[in-house]
Amino acid sequence: MTRHDGRAADDLRDVRITRNWLDHAEGSVLVEFGRTRVLCAASFTEGVPRWLKGQGKGWVTAEYEMLPRSTNTRSDRESRKGRVGGRTHEISRLIGRSLRAIIDTRALGENTIVLDCDVLQADGGTRTASITGAYVALVDAIADGKARGLIPASASPLTGSVAAISVGVVAGVPVLDLDYPEDSTAETDMNIVMTGNGQFIEVQGTAEGAPFDRALLDSLLDLGTLGCGLLKQKQQAALAAPARERLA
Amino acid sequence: MTRHDGRAADDLRDVRITRNWLDHAEGSVLVEFGRTRVLCAASFTEGVPRWLKGQGKGWVTAEYEMLPRSTNTRSDRESRKGRVGGRTHEISRLIGRSLRAIIDTRALGENTIVLDCDVLQADGGTRTASITGAYVALVDAIADGKARGLIPASASPLTGSVAAISVGVVAGVPVLDLDYPEDSTAETDMNIVMTGNGQFIEVQGTAEGAPFDRALLDSLLDLGTLGCGLLKQKQQAALAAPARERLA
Amino acid sequence: MTRHDGRAADDLRDVRITRNWLDHAEGSVLVEFGRTRVLCAASFTEGVPRWLKGQGKGWVTAEYEMLPRSTNTRSDRESRKGRVGGRTHEISRLIGRSLRAIIDTRALGENTIVLDCDVLQADGGTRTASITGAYVALVDAIADGKARGLIPASASPLTGSVAAISVGVVAGVPVLDLDYPEDSTAETDMNIVMTGNGQFIEVQGTAEGAPFDRALLDSLLDLGTLGCGLLKQKQQAALAAPARERLA
Amino acid sequence: MTRHDGRAADDLRDVRITRNWLDHAEGSVLVEFGRTRVLCAASFTEGVPRWLKGQGKGWVTAEYEMLPRSTNTRSDRESRKGRVGGRTHEISRLIGRSLRAIIDTRALGENTIVLDCDVLQADGGTRTASITGAYVALVDAIADGKARGLIPASASPLTGSVAAISVGVVAGVPVLDLDYPEDSTAETDMNIVMTGNGQFIEVQGTAEGAPFDRALLDSLLDLGTLGCGLLKQKQQAALAAPARERLA
Amino acid sequence: MTRHDGRAADDLRDVRITRNWLDHAEGSVLVEFGRTRVLCAASFTEGVPRWLKGQGKGWVTAEYEMLPRSTNTRSDRESRKGRVGGRTHEISRLIGRSLRAIIDTRALGENTIVLDCDVLQADGGTRTASITGAYVALVDAIADGKARGLIPASASPLTGSVAAISVGVVAGVPVLDLDYPEDSTAETDMNIVMTGNGQFIEVQGTAEGAPFDRALLDSLLDLGTLGCGLLKQKQQAALAAPARERLA
Amino acid sequence: MTRHDGRAADDLRDVRITRNWLDHAEGSVLVEFGRTRVLCAASFTEGVPRWLKGQGKGWVTAEYEMLPRSTNTRSDRESRKGRVGGRTHEISRLIGRSLRAIIDTRALGENTIVLDCDVLQADGGTRTASITGAYVALVDAIADGKARGLIPASASPLTGSVAAISVGVVAGVPVLDLDYPEDSTAETDMNIVMTGNGQFIEVQGTAEGAPFDRALLDSLLDLGTLGCGLLKQKQQAALAAPARERLA
Repeated sequence: MTRHDGRAADDLRDVRITRNWLDHAEGSVLVEFGRTRVLCAASFTEGVPRWLKGQGKGWVTAEYEMLPRSTNTRSDRESRKGRVGGRTHEISRLIGRSLRAIIDTRALGENTIVLDCDVLQADGGTRTASITGAYVALVDAIADGKARGLIPASASPLTGSVAAISVGVVAGVPVLDLDYPEDSTAETDMNIVMTGNGQFIEVQGTAEGAPFDRALLDSLLDLGTLGCGLLKQKQQAALAAPARERLA
Repeated sequence: MTRHDGRAADDLRDVRITRNWLDHAEGSVLVEFGRTRVLCAASFTEGVPRWLKGQGKGWVTAEYEMLPRSTNTRSDRESRKGRVGGRTHEISRLIGRSLRAIIDTRALGENTIVLDCDVLQADGGTRTASITGAYVALVDAIADGKARGLIPASASPLTGSVAAISVGVVAGVPVLDLDYPEDSTAETDMNIVMTGNGQFIEVQGTAEGAPFDRALLDSLLDLGTLGCGLLKQKQQAALAAPARERLA
Repeated sequence: MTRHDGRAADDLRDVRITRNWLDHAEGSVLVEFGRTRVLCAASFTEGVPRWLKGQGKGWVTAEYEMLPRSTNTRSDRESRKGRVGGRTHEISRLIGRSLRAIIDTRALGENTIVLDCDVLQADGGTRTASITGAYVALVDAIADGKARGLIPASASPLTGSVAAISVGVVAGVPVLDLDYPEDSTAETDMNIVMTGNGQFIEVQGTAEGAPFDRALLDSLLDLGTLGCGLLKQKQQAALAAPARERLA
Repeated sequence: MTRHDGRAADDLRDVRITRNWLDHAEGSVLVEFGRTRVLCAASFTEGVPRWLKGQGKGWVTAEYEMLPRSTNTRSDRESRKGRVGGRTHEISRLIGRSLRAIIDTRALGENTIVLDCDVLQADGGTRTASITGAYVALVDAIADGKARGLIPASASPLTGSVAAISVGVVAGVPVLDLDYPEDSTAETDMNIVMTGNGQFIEVQGTAEGAPFDRALLDSLLDLGTLGCGLLKQKQQAALAAPARERLA
Repeated sequence: MTRHDGRAADDLRDVRITRNWLDHAEGSVLVEFGRTRVLCAASFTEGVPRWLKGQGKGWVTAEYEMLPRSTNTRSDRESRKGRVGGRTHEISRLIGRSLRAIIDTRALGENTIVLDCDVLQADGGTRTASITGAYVALVDAIADGKARGLIPASASPLTGSVAAISVGVVAGVPVLDLDYPEDSTAETDMNIVMTGNGQFIEVQGTAEGAPFDRALLDSLLDLGTLGCGLLKQKQQAALAAPARERLA
Repeated sequence: MTRHDGRAADDLRDVRITRNWLDHAEGSVLVEFGRTRVLCAASFTEGVPRWLKGQGKGWVTAEYEMLPRSTNTRSDRESRKGRVGGRTHEISRLIGRSLRAIIDTRALGENTIVLDCDVLQADGGTRTASITGAYVALVDAIADGKARGLIPASASPLTGSVAAISVGVVAGVPVLDLDYPEDSTAETDMNIVMTGNGQFIEVQGTAEGAPFDRALLDSLLDLGTLGCGLLKQKQQAALAAPARERLA
């Protein structure tokens, strides 16, 4: 079987991770999964939200949003509609939870890192690209915090790495990293978030068409595990290479 | 091991399903999972939303909300805050998707059924109780639609049944149907939605504490499958027994 | 003359007051006036709103809302509409004022009690049922505050009792406690809130059809006085009987 | 007894009604009760709201609002707060109901008249001044509709006149037409809306301090009846005098 | 050439400035440019917004709004729409900036003056009338602050005066102070804000029809300079005359 | 004199215009003025807003917004705050007006083009960069509309070109194209929008510090005219070069 873009069932799209795409943000990444393009900006600020004050712990959170023309046809801005939609909330919360799963908030100290994931162009997999890219921006923002002495040099706020990928059943076949044409026709759709050492942080599977049985669920979990392993390598390569200098 | 309320790891709480708790609604259920108490009202109306008109298909959707004092300490009303929170949106969408998975919208005809799931008292598992109870209210609303001739007698809008349960890891042990004290200390938390014939509609697992491995994930899926099977029997018993008469 | 449900002009509907319907709330009542069913939850919290701080006085307030399918046909949720309607505000304010009229805020100390009145089923008289039920929940919440030592044992925050009833002119005849079919055809509609010793707290009369003269106004006031007296007996009976134990 | 401004208990303040204060509006009145100053603009438009279409009936409604510096100390604008407060809603609804009570909507034809009552300066009694002034603006707007042929010359949309006044108990004495210093210290506060022929449209009494008994209620109703009669004369005088020409 | 109302190209409309139109406000002006009528109220309060605290400086800001029937046909209230429109924001900000340009905030001390400019009737030039009238109300509010000892007698918070006028090209001819019929057909529209000594505070020119060249821009700037000079004289005359006494 | 980044007073920053930065949008440009980076997407849709239907004219409008971390320190999202700020509205309206000034809406036919200008990174001049880049995206969207036959080949919806630049007085010297450090210390700030043939579309000058005199205003207008001429060349070069292929 060949997919509509020539990929094998277990192929990722081209994944590109460009660090320091912005000059102001403490960490920033333009992450691309094929045509999907997300700008992840990590903002490091001293202090924590009111409800967390005085506990010696930091906070990591995320906000996801799509630009109005990131999609095939233009969507109205949520700011103009005066309210944030359910899907936007859901994905923002997912990204935040996924990143907090690999953070030792005590080692972070009373600091806050906000990850803004703005989808510049959408072609399926925007939430998984966001998590995968935001992790790299988070690493850079923590390094910046150390460089500025806001996190002690000896502290290790990161307890591991995190990546995410979508899997699904298209035309009866389990496939990895669905693009929009695949996603919109998939019978089953699953997003998997894993640590760099192969454990699960989040598993979200939905029967879009017919319900699915345990055997199919197992094969999707296998495929997702494979994909997250591949993404971990991309993240490591991006972090090992020298990043663009931020303009003062 | 014994749980704080004396249950075995694979025990449900007391589950009660009271049909026709309301007089106006075409279907209504007060569903109780232990102290968790959700009022599920199914409203049947002719016609469909604008975007679905003229396609010969019906629509099923859901809205979930918690009363301000359903919880241990009072929460502000979302109506007063002027916006619906992310969690409320997420759960409303989950309930709607779960019910649509067992509905043949073409057989429903151009009719709409809205399931309002209002949590009167919360003690963990409000979303799984909502889905489990809403299914029964939905069955009654469809019967009412047939009785009134709005759905042809020969049509079969229901393609199966649906139930949902939470599973999680508490103090290192996988357990079924977590109450609030368990839920708030669980390391891993998973909600499973299944059809009456044992297939998955939705699997949502989250590592609250440490990430989890594949073996643990497998045992949680086993436990959830067991729980959904037990709930299916409760639903069947409730539907087999005579319901309270609605007051005209 | 006989009313459509067989009552005499000066008959109340069946009134039931079930205390401790909830487990978490410091006081809670399921109050029923015939098919009208309102859940009144009293939440006791230490401290007062910012504008009242440091004056040695407490605060009592109320929020009223209808579940979307409490009515004959489903209404949209105010939380989804993003704004609370005028009628909801009006009734919330009326309930709060009525309860404050029998509260000595200084004896309450710097504590706040919020009365949430959520209409589970509406069949006319939801605001009068709310006030009548909320009073009982308030009594229980104050007792709870005393039991926990948050109100001195010697303090008497309650200066009396309060009940409310609707009266109106249906088919030319003044009647007590209108249900929805009566209310929607009434020429005049009046809500009366009285203390247990027969004084007025609030009188709100509206000519829905033709304006009314002083003689008719007088007969409505007589009828309302009678009704509030009957409700006072129901409240006393409910408070005298042992209440359900709240589950820890 | 003398009141703080020298009035007798049953004296109105100086009442002035200036017609055609605006040039665009079909009817407009600057109404003054002492220092209270409300601009009432009646806007006549052909057609009715969607829910009333095709029934051959018109619609009359009202919107009340206070300018931010109408009061002693500045209040925030409701437009900036993003929501209309409960008090504003309540009074808007009261004005609308009061005017509809003397309108034959069928004779009005499928036309809408909106009464905007904007409080330029507040010194107590803004709602009663609004109703009293809005009636005069309404009369002028109906005349304008007739002059333009939008209402048949033979039709009589007005079934009577309407005026409103406040009464209350200040320092133990029932008084008429309270100004702000009186209103803010009144034990009981009542607003009375009456037709020109002495019937009640709305009676709203509230115990601000102590509950009140039937005898006191009766004396307040007497006083209000007197006051509405005096206001009727002021309205008639204003309507009898020639009004300022509106500038084209 | 003669304009539709008989004015010459460089004529202002009749300008009237009535001081102390309100009793509560520290400064208030009813300003009229022909049929345009704006109520400007200056509210003086001790203290400054949070972000300015402790810097020894005061704050001056403005809020502009139109009454719903100030215009030819009724507009919906922004408070009911739940959001303030872009035009309203723009003009509010312009008024605030214009007044701050002639204020020495340090001499004002930690006090705030809010200028509320509510358009009672609109016939073109509402923003320029607002600035021109608000200046006079501001002068009175500062005098009141001095009289009450909230500003030291020796301080000079005003560094000059400010007035504003519109200019535009109508039927090919540059004209001063456009009314609504002119404004709605103008090819170019410019608002000019100037100090009393002939310097520019704000220049906002917009090509409504065809773009304009430098020569035309120059002639519009000349005309605006003339108009602001005339308005300065009106302001001085109003401030020199005795003002109505405010009623205590 | 030399500016802090080495530019002469009449130097632009490096200006880069990258066409077809997106694949879905009918026209899209990443425009850079130094570190300021704005993504301009032109969305072409058939049909016009309701209020313009049936007049044979098209519509061009714009929405501007800043990403939360486009700035030095993170700003809250307007979507989360539930309302669009005044500055955002103002700039959106300015961009829309500027583009409409060079559009023949009748030649455009009943089509709508929305220009979304999202600021990815802000360093001063975001509104002028938006207008300058949006023009190029608009040209491409119109070409796309012609290629798809939605605009007749013979029609000429563009009546010219448009560009915009900021000028201001920094340390007493008039300078062109201010970056953020300059903008935040400028005494006077002016934005100038001009057509390609040297006429003015919009002139907006504001005295941030001291008011400015006519001579200074004249020199700023000269400088702005120079800058818009330079930008016109950049636009022409970008449109003359072959653009990246959009991925189907």
